[in-house]
Amino acid sequence: MGSKNYSVGVDLGATKIIAAVFDDKMKALSQCKAKTPSDKGGDAVAAAIVSLIQETCGEAELDGQALTSIGVAVPAPIDQATGIVINAPNMGLSNYPLGKKISAALGSVPVFLCNDVQAGLWGEVKLGALLDYQNAVGIFVGTGIGGGLLINGQLWRGSHGHAGEIGHMILEEGGPACGCGQYGCYEALASRTAMAKDAVMAASSGKSPIFASEAGGDFKKYKSSVFAKALEGKDESATRIVSRSAFWTGVAMANLVNAFDPEAIVLGGGIMPRFGEFYRKKALESMTEHLPPAFAKGVKVLLSELGDLAVPSGAALLAKSETEKEAGAGKQSVPAKSK
Amino acid sequence: MGSKNYSVGVDLGATKIIAAVFDDKMKALSQCKAKTPSDKGGDAVAAAIVSLIQETCGEAELDGQALTSIGVAVPAPIDQATGIVINAPNMGLSNYPLGKKISAALGSVPVFLCNDVQAGLWGEVKLGALLDYQNAVGIFVGTGIGGGLLINGQLWRGSHGHAGEIGHMILEEGGPACGCGQYGCYEALASRTAMAKDAVMAASSGKSPIFASEAGGDFKKYKSSVFAKALEGKDESATRIVSRSAFWTGVAMANLVNAFDPEAIVLGGGIMPRFGEFYRKKALESMTEHLPPAFAKGVKVLLSELGDLAVPSGAALLAKSETEKEAGAGKQSVPAKSK
Repeated sequence: MGSKNYSVGVDLGATKIIAAVFDDKMKALSQCKAKTPSDKGGDAVAAAIVSLIQETCGEAELDGQALTSIGVAVPAPIDQATGIVINAPNMGLSNYPLGKKISAALGSVPVFLCNDVQAGLWGEVKLGALLDYQNAVGIFVGTGIGGGLLINGQLWRGSHGHAGEIGHMILEEGGPACGCGQYGCYEALASRTAMAKDAVMAASSGKSPIFASEAGGDFKKYKSSVFAKALEGKDESATRIVSRSAFWTGVAMANLVNAFDPEAIVLGGGIMPRFGEFYRKKALESMTEHLPPAFAKGVKVLLSELGDLAVPSGAALLAKSETEKEAGAGKQSVPAKSK
Repeated sequence: MGSKNYSVGVDLGATKIIAAVFDDKMKALSQCKAKTPSDKGGDAVAAAIVSLIQETCGEAELDGQALTSIGVAVPAPIDQATGIVINAPNMGLSNYPLGKKISAALGSVPVFLCNDVQAGLWGEVKLGALLDYQNAVGIFVGTGIGGGLLINGQLWRGSHGHAGEIGHMILEEGGPACGCGQYGCYEALASRTAMAKDAVMAASSGKSPIFASEAGGDFKKYKSSVFAKALEGKDESATRIVSRSAFWTGVAMANLVNAFDPEAIVLGGGIMPRFGEFYRKKALESMTEHLPPAFAKGVKVLLSELGDLAVPSGAALLAKSETEKEAGAGKQSVPAKSK
């Protein structure tokens, strides 16, 4: 198997890590998960990633050192050139050289860091729902809300690398408080965190027995699976709470269509695999309500096709193209004789 | 003067038309204004533009037929390839071949239509406040609010040509009614139209003698000059109303910085020449309030430098580059022997 190019993509989250091994056709050979040791500092996080990569390679019957590149998607600001995580307080990382640590532990395999949402969008562009599109927006709804822009077939990272912070677009000035300190951000209105706040109230009202028995007054227990169970049980509060999130997602989509005019919008993130078509339809309805008919007709609203594999796939692809770019740059340093 | 390249840029608005003649260095040689015969149909609008171009050329001591290209910026959807205005109900134009009509009346000078806001942004990029920037947003506040995006040094028109419709981003869902049928659009909160609605109330309250004497209860009399006069007179209502518009402009700016991460934002449009630095400062304050400090610091907030000439300059420049592109395409149809 030595002649093939194998790569790994890692989705590093504050609660869990997902790693997947891909062959040179980007077919996933294996996929593993682990808990993030968020309270144990940078070295523990790096070691957890290394050991998860080794486990995933083991499942694919590969030696970790046989890899040509590793992409690690991080939900925090990074310095791509140096592989440093600038600041991820929820994992105790501050100016931490995550890329180098992982690379050193795996026999100097090149490791590239990238933004998790941009990786998720890139995965969908190259392998999933956005295969046929050049200009698109990705909206990823989970604990928080992130976004990514595709312009002329390329990720648009912005002038300072922070494009796509759509979760903090204000949709209802003076609305509910957001973790960022603002009021009325899209994230404060529609994230799973926002939904959990409403669910706690619904559970305490006595009108929502599924919420009451599954999570009750414990804000943190409201995982997507709890909402999904309540939705399936036709719990009216759950239906309203999920629909309300989709309503605000539709408003955000309308704003992005007005400002940016994409061909397609892909909906992904932690809640999508559970709510899927129900959520997509409600969001599409709300977007259509908030746009001129011609604008609404012109944009396709799609669900993520890669689910949990979107971020690892995108991270692996971005790492592969960085590795190829560096190899190419090395070759070009010998002057070409003719064009 | 026959060897130089002269061009004309026209800013067609629903109430007035501005035309300017430029030399090959884009120096404005003359500039004229006329009222738009909005209630007399397409042929009257075309004739008014032709006669204004002739007047402007006369002032520059040029023959209208000596022009190499004419750019006409239109505040409505257009078909650029055919020079057709698709629909401008406020000027009685519907599928009207404005480009051909003007060209025919001026001895077949090439005429190109473009979007007025995109022209205004392009003028600032090539000759004004945005000379040093590759990635920027233009926000133009007048009767309505329009926007434009500059990405990698190019106008971003979007997948269907309607990018930059930032006036209809929803900033306060369920807020005041907008002309578009939605509630809480940026335009409904911050345009001169929105300001006039508040000014009528202020005038009727007896607390704003300048508004009362200048425009009173007549919504349509609230031009930018009336607000400017009241501001200069330290009228408290005027200060609050203009500050409120700037506040919402700051919220829109914050949303655009979060989503798109530009290097700079330029503020232009009908109200800016009157309110200038006062408005810019208030908008900047509000944007800063609504963003993480690092994001706010990373973006320059500038005033339009070209004022009334922004749109004609941009229209003339876009027409020139279209003409050159066509000439280039003509040459390339003869196969090149070597590269």
